[in-house]
Amino acid sequence: MLGVCYYPEHWPESWWPEDAKKMREVGISFVRIAEFAWSRIEPEAGRFAWAWLDRAIDTLHKHGLRVVMCTPTATPPKWLIEQFPGIVPLDEQGRARGFGSRRHYTFSSPDWLRESRRICEIVAQRYGAHPGVAGWQTDNEYGCHDTVMSYGRHDLEAFQGWLRQRYQTPQQLNEAWGNVFWSMELTDFAQVTLPNLTVTQANPAAALDFRRFSSEQVTKYDAMQAAIIRKYSPGRWVTHNFMGFFTEFDHFLLGDHLDFASWDSYPLGFVERSGLDEAERTRWAETSHPDIAPFHHDLYRGIAGNKFWVMEQQPGPVNWAPWNPVPKPGMVRIWSWEALAHGAEVVSYFRWRQVPFAQEQMHAGLNRPDRTLSVGGHEAMEVGKELFKLGVLAPSVQSSVALVYSYEAAWMTKLERQGQDFIYSDVAFRYYTALRRMGLNVDIVRPGASLKGYKAVVVPCLPYISPEAMSAFRETQAQILFGPRSGAKTHDFAISPQLPPGDLQALIALKVTQVASLRPGLTAAVAGHDASGREQAGKAWRWREWVETELQPQMTFQDGNGALFTQNNVSYLAFWPQDDLLQEVIRAHVIAAGVQTMDLPEHVRVRRRGKLTFAFNYGPESWNIPDTATLVLGEREIKPQQLSVWE
Amino acid sequence: MLGVCYYPEHWPESWWPEDAKKMREVGISFVRIAEFAWSRIEPEAGRFAWAWLDRAIDTLHKHGLRVVMCTPTATPPKWLIEQFPGIVPLDEQGRARGFGSRRHYTFSSPDWLRESRRICEIVAQRYGAHPGVAGWQTDNEYGCHDTVMSYGRHDLEAFQGWLRQRYQTPQQLNEAWGNVFWSMELTDFAQVTLPNLTVTQANPAAALDFRRFSSEQVTKYDAMQAAIIRKYSPGRWVTHNFMGFFTEFDHFLLGDHLDFASWDSYPLGFVERSGLDEAERTRWAETSHPDIAPFHHDLYRGIAGNKFWVMEQQPGPVNWAPWNPVPKPGMVRIWSWEALAHGAEVVSYFRWRQVPFAQEQMHAGLNRPDRTLSVGGHEAMEVGKELFKLGVLAPSVQSSVALVYSYEAAWMTKLERQGQDFIYSDVAFRYYTALRRMGLNVDIVRPGASLKGYKAVVVPCLPYISPEAMSAFRETQAQILFGPRSGAKTHDFAISPQLPPGDLQALIALKVTQVASLRPGLTAAVAGHDASGREQAGKAWRWREWVETELQPQMTFQDGNGALFTQNNVSYLAFWPQDDLLQEVIRAHVIAAGVQTMDLPEHVRVRRRGKLTFAFNYGPESWNIPDTATLVLGEREIKPQQLSVWE
Amino acid sequence: MLGVCYYPEHWPESWWPEDAKKMREVGISFVRIAEFAWSRIEPEAGRFAWAWLDRAIDTLHKHGLRVVMCTPTATPPKWLIEQFPGIVPLDEQGRARGFGSRRHYTFSSPDWLRESRRICEIVAQRYGAHPGVAGWQTDNEYGCHDTVMSYGRHDLEAFQGWLRQRYQTPQQLNEAWGNVFWSMELTDFAQVTLPNLTVTQANPAAALDFRRFSSEQVTKYDAMQAAIIRKYSPGRWVTHNFMGFFTEFDHFLLGDHLDFASWDSYPLGFVERSGLDEAERTRWAETSHPDIAPFHHDLYRGIAGNKFWVMEQQPGPVNWAPWNPVPKPGMVRIWSWEALAHGAEVVSYFRWRQVPFAQEQMHAGLNRPDRTLSVGGHEAMEVGKELFKLGVLAPSVQSSVALVYSYEAAWMTKLERQGQDFIYSDVAFRYYTALRRMGLNVDIVRPGASLKGYKAVVVPCLPYISPEAMSAFRETQAQILFGPRSGAKTHDFAISPQLPPGDLQALIALKVTQVASLRPGLTAAVAGHDASGREQAGKAWRWREWVETELQPQMTFQDGNGALFTQNNVSYLAFWPQDDLLQEVIRAHVIAAGVQTMDLPEHVRVRRRGKLTFAFNYGPESWNIPDTATLVLGEREIKPQQLSVWE
Repeated sequence: MLGVCYYPEHWPESWWPEDAKKMREVGISFVRIAEFAWSRIEPEAGRFAWAWLDRAIDTLHKHGLRVVMCTPTATPPKWLIEQFPGIVPLDEQGRARGFGSRRHYTFSSPDWLRESRRICEIVAQRYGAHPGVAGWQTDNEYGCHDTVMSYGRHDLEAFQGWLRQRYQTPQQLNEAWGNVFWSMELTDFAQVTLPNLTVTQANPAAALDFRRFSSEQVTKYDAMQAAIIRKYSPGRWVTHNFMGFFTEFDHFLLGDHLDFASWDSYPLGFVERSGLDEAERTRWAETSHPDIAPFHHDLYRGIAGNKFWVMEQQPGPVNWAPWNPVPKPGMVRIWSWEALAHGAEVVSYFRWRQVPFAQEQMHAGLNRPDRTLSVGGHEAMEVGKELFKLGVLAPSVQSSVALVYSYEAAWMTKLERQGQDFIYSDVAFRYYTALRRMGLNVDIVRPGASLKGYKAVVVPCLPYISPEAMSAFRETQAQILFGPRSGAKTHDFAISPQLPPGDLQALIALKVTQVASLRPGLTAAVAGHDASGREQAGKAWRWREWVETELQPQMTFQDGNGALFTQNNVSYLAFWPQDDLLQEVIRAHVIAAGVQTMDLPEHVRVRRRGKLTFAFNYGPESWNIPDTATLVLGEREIKPQQLSVWE
Repeated sequence: MLGVCYYPEHWPESWWPEDAKKMREVGISFVRIAEFAWSRIEPEAGRFAWAWLDRAIDTLHKHGLRVVMCTPTATPPKWLIEQFPGIVPLDEQGRARGFGSRRHYTFSSPDWLRESRRICEIVAQRYGAHPGVAGWQTDNEYGCHDTVMSYGRHDLEAFQGWLRQRYQTPQQLNEAWGNVFWSMELTDFAQVTLPNLTVTQANPAAALDFRRFSSEQVTKYDAMQAAIIRKYSPGRWVTHNFMGFFTEFDHFLLGDHLDFASWDSYPLGFVERSGLDEAERTRWAETSHPDIAPFHHDLYRGIAGNKFWVMEQQPGPVNWAPWNPVPKPGMVRIWSWEALAHGAEVVSYFRWRQVPFAQEQMHAGLNRPDRTLSVGGHEAMEVGKELFKLGVLAPSVQSSVALVYSYEAAWMTKLERQGQDFIYSDVAFRYYTALRRMGLNVDIVRPGASLKGYKAVVVPCLPYISPEAMSAFRETQAQILFGPRSGAKTHDFAISPQLPPGDLQALIALKVTQVASLRPGLTAAVAGHDASGREQAGKAWRWREWVETELQPQMTFQDGNGALFTQNNVSYLAFWPQDDLLQEVIRAHVIAAGVQTMDLPEHVRVRRRGKLTFAFNYGPESWNIPDTATLVLGEREIKPQQLSVWE
Repeated sequence: MLGVCYYPEHWPESWWPEDAKKMREVGISFVRIAEFAWSRIEPEAGRFAWAWLDRAIDTLHKHGLRVVMCTPTATPPKWLIEQFPGIVPLDEQGRARGFGSRRHYTFSSPDWLRESRRICEIVAQRYGAHPGVAGWQTDNEYGCHDTVMSYGRHDLEAFQGWLRQRYQTPQQLNEAWGNVFWSMELTDFAQVTLPNLTVTQANPAAALDFRRFSSEQVTKYDAMQAAIIRKYSPGRWVTHNFMGFFTEFDHFLLGDHLDFASWDSYPLGFVERSGLDEAERTRWAETSHPDIAPFHHDLYRGIAGNKFWVMEQQPGPVNWAPWNPVPKPGMVRIWSWEALAHGAEVVSYFRWRQVPFAQEQMHAGLNRPDRTLSVGGHEAMEVGKELFKLGVLAPSVQSSVALVYSYEAAWMTKLERQGQDFIYSDVAFRYYTALRRMGLNVDIVRPGASLKGYKAVVVPCLPYISPEAMSAFRETQAQILFGPRSGAKTHDFAISPQLPPGDLQALIALKVTQVASLRPGLTAAVAGHDASGREQAGKAWRWREWVETELQPQMTFQDGNGALFTQNNVSYLAFWPQDDLLQEVIRAHVIAAGVQTMDLPEHVRVRRRGKLTFAFNYGPESWNIPDTATLVLGEREIKPQQLSVWE
């Protein structure tokens, strides 16, 4: 189904009914509202102005639209900040991040927590039982603009409390962090300082704990909102709209109290935030890379409820990337269908109409500022019609392949980069894209999730192997491929005592004795054979390890050291392969696992949902669907920026 | 005529008479003094030391030199800062910008305003009627080192007052800024904060008003100084020395109370501050790009009085650019004559003698530190002799071509870059250089200036079309070419309600429905024909628009969309052309307007003043003047770094 | 001899005896300890815990190891910082640099000075006479992490006192600094501010004095520690471990009170900190450039006592560079022997065992975290055996070639960069490498050191020529080659009154009248002949000067200006040559001086110590030693990453 983000407070009330009517014509079912409306809901402390919002919701409801109601906490109004100045966060440089945009609050301010509770309760009370309200979104894009961590007094105090809870005594904290190293030992939790503005790098164990704490603060805050909503709005679901390529808090943990996850999909903007190099960014500037949105669809589908929404779908050019091209004609349709093919329940466009004022005036909507349907609006309407034609889509089922993704892995490799270009989300993304080039449906799962039922599992990088993760690895019969740095660290961010890959040595008997990060231009040649005897050759870059083992390597470095090892169903890859070689490794891995594959060109992707197979052409050449397919939508020859669906 | 900047306080008094004598020998008529001498004029609060300055002025006067007297406000002395610490500005990061260099004051400090008034009055009183004083320069290079905007308490209070004046009620301010967008609504002007240190981008409407306010603060400050000078120094002119590629305040508005503008011309240093790419910077490193200084001559000639001075002319290598090459032999002469050819009344070199100490010791002068004429000194002397030979130069007359230049356009496109490489001054410069390659005299005018009498007008980018600008466009019969983004915004920095180009739609019936900024490497092919049927083809880069219209395009993008449209005398160019194509577009435009042109190679430029035509060769190949020309200066074959003048 | 850095406090006490035993097996004689152990020595203010350290020292001593004892001042514990918060330094942005890593103190805090004295005395008293203690290291890596300069209240007050001492009256300070320039004149030393956070560049003379002051603060601090140690630990030597490519304080001056210098040699990490370009960095990423460590060996040997230690030798990959490759097999051995060949008394590896926790867990040791000898450990053991075979190495003798190196030159060229790529340590390094490519032993000496006995001297860049330096230049009969900018400045950071090269004009009669810094891509062709008539040609880049003289140039620029001049035994090079041409110039220079040379490929270096010649092959091709050589170690064909020694 389709949805849209709507801001009645931005438009004359006289436009509302017509907007609602037109939404229906476009094929919209859901309308998200009110997440930035606090100053209109409560213009002054304690004075509420409900009438306009009542009428807005009623108008939408009357037109058969279902409302996604939001808590307005992403934009505390000025009068609140004046009343409680301690609400604003401090950045890593120690500067207060003032009023004037959004997200100007720290999750650790007691005043903020109390005021958040108050506004959530009053909003949930008023609209919780409204028949037009289908469900709720909490806040908006937690962490956006680097707002997970704050470095003020409230943050410090909350962190000290969190540590006291976790470590009980300063001695145990000193022990866990290895504070003896540079005389960093503490004798009281009140001596703890935040890991910013140190002379050189802070203790990574301390920094990791600060990240864990900060992540938990977000989760606790959201859980508080969800509980209030559930109390006052029974029978409605609760979600939050996450972002893309964002790893600053653990989305899996927050998702545990949601009904499902939603996310904000900006395929073009994310090209500039990705790990793609300059040439790749130019190549995909107007279509997006074919795996950027799908990667996140698969990630967020795995958060909660085996489904997800796209809460904000890019409908045209946006305003916030370094460059903001216009999507190629057809791309808004393709992005919408990619989401649906990956299991999205709803694709909701941001926003109904481009707003001509303030920060996001250059962000397209389904309608232009002159109240005319935009290019993206026309494509959305096409999707609406096609959706109607296809009927209800099947629920998502388990894929044969899983990729294990970890937020803590992102933090650990960021805190200990070791090589400047070791970016966790880029590592994960490149494994993912290699799988997708084989025509596979992929599940993205958290470490510790059951891996039963999968044929092949890839773990691009997982420094800390929790007991839960270890159990899952032990218990699956899938072929598992671990990438470098896996098992390298303990929970306390120390090197595994038996050397990396730590506990994984129980599954594959090898030790990593040395690691090298390789500057751009420095590579190491690798060669070997896959299980079928097919030659594999290419280059390691960025990261390489030296392994001590009695296992026979399947691939070796030119200097004779082993590069890829397998023991039973477990493989360990001791380097970061360049893309071509990674593709070879992944192909061999999934084929060995008995997974059926299909080699796709770099601009085509397929996805199966139920009986349907969707194929997407990101251009620039046509691609023909298999001869045996029974066409449901589109043509047998898929032209650039077109899609086809078959059974 | 020639002038020079002189600092008697830097040299033994015994040198002064000889310096003055030698100045006359070089051909100097004007001597600027005292702009950094406050600590010598008033060594302690209220204690004045006039004697040395009296003698310095008398010495110059006695030798027949005319003094350009300055107010010393660019360098408040330490005792003043200690007395009134609130004088120092705060930078965008909130840090006080302390004593120890120059320009350590904010225009909004009441203490500073009072003290400025005091020192200006006392200096103007003392020297206003001195027969040796020809005129005045206020302060020095307003805004240098990023000092237009300051972010302290005084700035905030003054800004709040300015907003109260402008908007009367907080509701009107909320409305104008679109504060509803992210709950940014205010209920009192005292709630306004400055647009720095926000979590993410501040409201661009707020930021634009802060820039307008800050620009007005500079103008008001300068007007205060000018009024004092006019009171005490009747019959003398007042100017200020502006800078190059500097757009942080509106020079046109400040110029309204000046007798004429002057500017500080550093052709080599500006190469590194320009929008030129790496290859272009290397190409022009030792000569400057042939349009860098001329662009500013034409700009500043248009500020006030139809004339201008170069108050500081680069005389050799300087100290402040990332690299500081020695100009090729002949360039100081060329730069001097370019200024004169463009209408400069006086070219005044900075500085008489290279000072061996402090911040600018690596900045050349007309004399070396060892009191010997430098290479630049010799070239200046040559110019002096040639000037004498040519006699009085004709006054400037209106050109047939005008370029509309707007400081507000620079602010708007900076606040809403949308594409990282959209730099207003680069846009304007590239249109200007295309005109100059056609051998044209160009006037640079403010939006709203009358355009009567011009045959061709180019408006490289003018997001806001004021009523005055609109009238001027309506009333001219010139062919007008508007570049992209023109008419895109309202005065309140919102998208024009009828879509861009807003009010310009009354002149050319089209709507811009989408805009794309293109990352480096991303281009769009364009082709078409000019009025004469000549083929035009090339590429759009950086910026491209989609246009809805019933007009037939003259050029189209490869995807079929129109790229250039004309209706009556008005054209709209819907993209940023690469240089070659821009040259084609500009050529077609001015030829269609009936302007006579002359194709010049990229290293040669001509300018006409009165009956004389000046031609300048920036190298590296010779260039022959037209056969029909009657030579007045130089040779018929102009060698690299040479110039010729003919009738 | 060999040594190692050991941290008993990081390991179970039960491991100590075995560690000591194994150290002996590896060939270790010296063990450095305790430099980061303050929190274990004094867990709370005034409560000392000596027992563990007593036992650690005794254990080492019992096993025949000699202890290098350290003062623990590099890591003041948290309780001390809480007691005296004024200890922490302020960075250039004015931010306090807090607890949580190391070096969180300013040398100007009176509290810190008193507390440092206290802890040094108590440690020196306790262990000064211990028979196992061979000598002392003060603190650790002064200045690491940008800690020489601090910008707080204590720093300001100490600086004001230092200036009062030096200049007596504010008038003399104004005069020396040229404060008249921008009305920067002061009337009281209390008005002095630090040269940070000024609106634009601070007065370079003031900034230079602040650097001199800050450098002296380090020296005074270390002298205080050394005096305490000498008082309580008679008969033991005192050293400090300096760093590589670090010029923020004057190591020669600090060295004056040391018995000898030691330094921390990280050949791979320094590749990324060097002036090498990207291609060179990749080329040498896994071996280091063959002159990086040797340059520092020669530098530190010249600091004190005609000998030096490598206190920390890289034993494998480290953690702190942007990329951290694994050294090619054989490199740890080569680096160790390079140090010994250059006169090192001891090569001490950092560290005994890789520590699995805290900031440096990715830094290799001689042992892996699993208590197994690492690759580097095995190579160290090989060096140990070879050392035993070669017996006592001869003491260092004067070389025939000297390079004059100056910390003040580094400061002056940094404060007045003039061209962005003029980096003093890169200039010096490239002259050094040209000498080493000729197969020469090189001494690196301070300006003012006697130059008697040298045949050839090179002075890559020495802006200020002190009277002592001038005497040394006058008194030597060596051929001296001065690079550009030499003699350009006075002690007060002004241009030499008779123009550059200032006092050097007494030795070579020429004046520098103009200087150009050249942006990347801008070069000037140079050609000429050396003394033997051999043609020399190439390019100037980065820096070029114009010279006025009656001397005949040996090389000229394409525009006819002179580029290289010689008068008697003194030559002046008026530009920065690209590497090939520099090699030509240096070859001609040393050959003219009668020095015997040997052309080496870029990957091979030799060094003579006593009767032995050491040759090192940094790869990738083999190199044959001279036929006449009598082999002592290695093969006649030196394979990549191998070394040979002959008589």
